[in-house]
Amino acid sequence: MIAFEEAISLVLDTCKGFGVEQVPLKESFGRVLAEDIFADRDFPPFHRATKDGIAINYDAITKSLEEFRIIDIAAAGSPQKELLDFSCCIEIMTGAVLPLSADTVIMYEHLKIKGEDAVVQKPVKKGQNIHRKGSDEPKGTTVLKVGKKITAAEIGVLASVGKSEVLVKKNPKVCLVSTGDELVDVIETPMAHQIRKSNVHTIEATLLREGIRSESVHIKDDKEITKSKLIQLLNNFDVLLLSGGVSKGKYDYLPEVLEDIGVEKVFHKVKQRPGKPFWFGQHKEKEVTVFAFPGNPASTFANYHVYFIPWLNKCLGLSTIEFTVILEEAFENSTDLTRFIRAKARIVAGKLKCNLILGNGSGDLTSLSKANGFVLLKSNKEYKSGAIVPFIATRSIL
Amino acid sequence: MIAFEEAISLVLDTCKGFGVEQVPLKESFGRVLAEDIFADRDFPPFHRATKDGIAINYDAITKSLEEFRIIDIAAAGSPQKELLDFSCCIEIMTGAVLPLSADTVIMYEHLKIKGEDAVVQKPVKKGQNIHRKGSDEPKGTTVLKVGKKITAAEIGVLASVGKSEVLVKKNPKVCLVSTGDELVDVIETPMAHQIRKSNVHTIEATLLREGIRSESVHIKDDKEITKSKLIQLLNNFDVLLLSGGVSKGKYDYLPEVLEDIGVEKVFHKVKQRPGKPFWFGQHKEKEVTVFAFPGNPASTFANYHVYFIPWLNKCLGLSTIEFTVILEEAFENSTDLTRFIRAKARIVAGKLKCNLILGNGSGDLTSLSKANGFVLLKSNKEYKSGAIVPFIATRSIL
Repeated sequence: MIAFEEAISLVLDTCKGFGVEQVPLKESFGRVLAEDIFADRDFPPFHRATKDGIAINYDAITKSLEEFRIIDIAAAGSPQKELLDFSCCIEIMTGAVLPLSADTVIMYEHLKIKGEDAVVQKPVKKGQNIHRKGSDEPKGTTVLKVGKKITAAEIGVLASVGKSEVLVKKNPKVCLVSTGDELVDVIETPMAHQIRKSNVHTIEATLLREGIRSESVHIKDDKEITKSKLIQLLNNFDVLLLSGGVSKGKYDYLPEVLEDIGVEKVFHKVKQRPGKPFWFGQHKEKEVTVFAFPGNPASTFANYHVYFIPWLNKCLGLSTIEFTVILEEAFENSTDLTRFIRAKARIVAGKLKCNLILGNGSGDLTSLSKANGFVLLKSNKEYKSGAIVPFIATRSIL
Repeated sequence: MIAFEEAISLVLDTCKGFGVEQVPLKESFGRVLAEDIFADRDFPPFHRATKDGIAINYDAITKSLEEFRIIDIAAAGSPQKELLDFSCCIEIMTGAVLPLSADTVIMYEHLKIKGEDAVVQKPVKKGQNIHRKGSDEPKGTTVLKVGKKITAAEIGVLASVGKSEVLVKKNPKVCLVSTGDELVDVIETPMAHQIRKSNVHTIEATLLREGIRSESVHIKDDKEITKSKLIQLLNNFDVLLLSGGVSKGKYDYLPEVLEDIGVEKVFHKVKQRPGKPFWFGQHKEKEVTVFAFPGNPASTFANYHVYFIPWLNKCLGLSTIEFTVILEEAFENSTDLTRFIRAKARIVAGKLKCNLILGNGSGDLTSLSKANGFVLLKSNKEYKSGAIVPFIATRSIL
């Protein structure tokens, strides 16, 4: 049995990437960039009007001209016009190219239009209301770097520089494996001694948040079936997330079978609650990583967030930021186990305050749904109300 | 021109639901529950062993018995056994049904197995290691309520109580409408006076975060085309999110055309930056809500988060929580406009600290990608470093 700190460090030591792939822009949402992105032109690509009004040459203003004959109109999307006579102006729309020889835009709100003429009503500053060519990013600037997670804002940047296809890090192929003969499908009515599967559905949903569509299989508590089924899975996936079958029970074949088929154990059992019997290993030749979580829902859910998510992030080149919250109640962890306790964090005047959700042990049905994360509490430690503790979110809080 | 507070309140006054629909469990992830969910049986449904070991009757312990003959084994998934002779025990696996007449489980770690006998090595407490029938939730309890957002934890609860189909609130059908003749598709190489579309892609991605797959169309700056196209869209969508065409420009037909085709203006122009020309209206008969945002990326992005998301949440029966952060720098808003300023929040020792990202005006390409939200700053107000200000997240922070 190893300490939590050692376990997480051993898990993170096994990280490796899964390659890269080209995807259409739309499908790049939520993925991790695998290429630097450059400005393919100046941004903005031309001196761009930021207001609707008229474009003039400022020299006219210095010569005290206040009334300009409107001779043309520059619409957004039209090629550049030219202002030849500085006693005249060209009407201009937001987003349009500033006409050649014009250098200043006066918005309609500061003008009075009299027939064909625009009369200036307010002081004018040379160069006003123009978003200057290249002032955001000159052509060639790196606008996004490898390793950036693509959210909506990055989609906007990628679209602007013409990336209809984007090189992103490949996600791992993940298979969820449930074990335990007491489990029946959601659609079935369980007999008195049976329960419905829930872990595969929960983890499938958490993986969707990461943009990963997983597959799932159920394996009966039979050593030979388990062996042949797992061999098959090793050939088709990068990651197996197992739940159940790793305790001391007579039918807990997994650790033995996994080692039999060449998955090298990195560790089995961690000084933690929930999830003490957690088994972790790797099939080096086939490059498959195996997380075998204990079967009860809180164990699988906590260990998935504690181990798998940081592992996945590191494989994809993302860092996992350690978040902290302010514990709003005292708690003594008198065990020699690191504890992940369901908790509910909320934001109060810029502070993250957190209360524990002390449920009914790790088999509890609804307390995961009352929580929005876990606090991580060290072994043999007394926490006072107000203590700053690490927090692992299990749903989006902010 | 109305104040921001009035604008948001007028927008929220128009909220209404879009009905409900039955979806498979898997597709319910991210949706909002439209039915109360009940425990269909006791949870746990039987006295359930929480450890691997032996099941005994505690009377034997009171009679100082320390050695038990193993006569049977209770596996998880097997029907209930019965313990007839209290000098004997039944081996039991985690998740298995406690045998009839047994009342206590002793884990292997506290036993020595000698051939057919299990010898108790540690003190035993009556009833230990049993997760009692109905102790989490008795049959009939409401385990999830209408209006709950379905995250991974709720998927686990729904699976456990056998909801293979779930009644959820319908999402609106959303169409994204871009306008502006300067816009070309991402895949095209723009001419000198053109730029690529980005807003529709950005908003499409933000809608995906809400589980909404939108459609998008581009409309040329032509009054008749705009009119006929919008009439068509009014018949097929619940919400139109427009960008561009609402300023004072000669080709900014939208406000006029929208009213022409029966979309009643609720307001046009808000004392805010970015997004002053924001136009909002409703087609009451066709029950279509129209958000017409100004065309530049920061305006559309900010106004989408400030107005559309709270509106959507309220329509679905979710509340929008106002989050606050601690401003790490002084800022004076000397305008009479409510300002949404790009900002980056981070968590430091349980506090949400935030710095402003002062970009290059609202047309700025990359500053949205450097920020993770907007702070909302009131008009004519001086903020000191350390001030608590509202924060609107634009990507997942915690």
